[in-house]
Amino acid sequence: MIIEIENCADSLLEAQSILFLCHAHPDGDTLGSATALAHALKGLDKTVAVMCDDKIPQRFDFMFVGIKQVVDFEPGLIVAVDVADTSLLGRNAQLKYSEKIDLCIDHHASNKLYASAVWLEPDSASAAEMVYNLIKKMELPISKQTASCLFTGVSTDTGCFRFSNTTPRTHRIAADLIELGADSESIIQTFFETKSRAYASLERMALDEMQFYLGGRCAIMPLTRAMFGKSGADDSDTDRLANLPRQVEGVLVGVTLKEQSDGAFKASLRTHGDVDASAICARLGGGGHKGAAGVTLNVSMAQCISRLVEEIEKEIGE
Amino acid sequence: MIIEIENCADSLLEAQSILFLCHAHPDGDTLGSATALAHALKGLDKTVAVMCDDKIPQRFDFMFVGIKQVVDFEPGLIVAVDVADTSLLGRNAQLKYSEKIDLCIDHHASNKLYASAVWLEPDSASAAEMVYNLIKKMELPISKQTASCLFTGVSTDTGCFRFSNTTPRTHRIAADLIELGADSESIIQTFFETKSRAYASLERMALDEMQFYLGGRCAIMPLTRAMFGKSGADDSDTDRLANLPRQVEGVLVGVTLKEQSDGAFKASLRTHGDVDASAICARLGGGGHKGAAGVTLNVSMAQCISRLVEEIEKEIGE
Repeated sequence: MIIEIENCADSLLEAQSILFLCHAHPDGDTLGSATALAHALKGLDKTVAVMCDDKIPQRFDFMFVGIKQVVDFEPGLIVAVDVADTSLLGRNAQLKYSEKIDLCIDHHASNKLYASAVWLEPDSASAAEMVYNLIKKMELPISKQTASCLFTGVSTDTGCFRFSNTTPRTHRIAADLIELGADSESIIQTFFETKSRAYASLERMALDEMQFYLGGRCAIMPLTRAMFGKSGADDSDTDRLANLPRQVEGVLVGVTLKEQSDGAFKASLRTHGDVDASAICARLGGGGHKGAAGVTLNVSMAQCISRLVEEIEKEIGE
Repeated sequence: MIIEIENCADSLLEAQSILFLCHAHPDGDTLGSATALAHALKGLDKTVAVMCDDKIPQRFDFMFVGIKQVVDFEPGLIVAVDVADTSLLGRNAQLKYSEKIDLCIDHHASNKLYASAVWLEPDSASAAEMVYNLIKKMELPISKQTASCLFTGVSTDTGCFRFSNTTPRTHRIAADLIELGADSESIIQTFFETKSRAYASLERMALDEMQFYLGGRCAIMPLTRAMFGKSGADDSDTDRLANLPRQVEGVLVGVTLKEQSDGAFKASLRTHGDVDASAICARLGGGGHKGAAGVTLNVSMAQCISRLVEEIEKEIGE
């Protein structure tokens, strides 16, 4: 059932114990939105926990100070945040919770409507924007820590206000969050302005291997296990590499192709203008947003490139 | 004389003909702010022109549609916008106008107060933020084109909302400008998300030559004429390279060292946290803001590096 923000607020306020579920391979939006809700509702003496199937990278630690990550209670309400499909919960959480999700708060147009109640805003740049409005609707106070959780979601899901999903609302919420004490400077420094030397080295290798297709309208940048080994870069901090191929003049579809530990390739697409990345990925079994989408292909790199270029050509024409 | 926004508005509204002066080596803020004022005041049947001593790069052309760049009238008011010192006007404009500037609108704390009247807001992230408020104070309409001029200034002077000068006001003005029709998507794409292949190649070369000093707290990246020659990159689009050295983990002061056609080196400093880039540059004869400053040194590259590292060490300690 599709619900509105008011119903969503009522459900959360009525529940005595709430489990928030994040998607696997967690990012700033799923973690920031879930922890912000947990912080805000904890103030009402509810029992809350935030769970993610994957290890949470250290740079998100500040969000979890005071938040339980172990589910040692029987949750009265199970809420998925920023999770478009139960398959994205990760294997353990999917097995355990996929049939039991009461409420889903999400901004992905591709949401599979798997929860009993779904509050969906496909035009929202981030789940964090929705959650900011939701906490205000519930008339709960927003602490500095909560503001920082939300600012992380708002900024990371918009490439720090650069992606085309950024709206006037995005900027106004960012302004409010800074006034509420969000540590915007350190968040931006951590998530956008800091590269480890290993990461910087990986970036140089990857840029050197970038190839162009379809008359320069498509750029594909491979990230192999060998590059990770040679650079010493950490797997977890490579999301922003995905934006680099699209930055080259004339490129409409930029792709990073990250070799997984099992030999599969995870393609992350970023597009310009009217080109629909999620349509391209959907035809290969993936999904996402119009400007940013992904798909994992269990074939060789050469086959992977060939299939992607074929589908991209269908989308952007000859 | 230091004046307030009201006096500034009165001066502009009273004048029948106005010449706006931009700084040489023009950027999005000086050009966007001056052209926005020109567009807004032109609507009142005033004669206006915007002048810059240097050639204006093509990506700013949209600002000048309908704006005169030739001064074929005797200006009743001469206004410098985003110009901290008359020496920054460029040689010709300095000779012609430096003694005659009636009004200066600026956000540089280092402003030399050379004009008869100065409206200064050192806490404003950009001159464009001031000009937005000024146009509203004058109760003049803001067209889509004017909004785009201002959005360019607001976004480029904050590294697209990343630099620490970004405030809640910056975000709220950005929101207003998008609602007024600023073409934020194309502006961000042009100024932040597009690299020519030549530029991408220059960036790789420069990153390969980056060296670390002071235990990794200072990174210096040289940009030689040879690199420009080899990559085919254009001199005019290299400002954002200045942000790269600071991005490496542990770096407090990031420097690009750009060889000029006369053999001098233009150092651009970007700092983190409390490190004052303008103090370092001031001791070498340059200036700027706390987080971003510059200085031109007419010595060899080796001497240049040695002097910079010496002054940087004084600022950040051992």
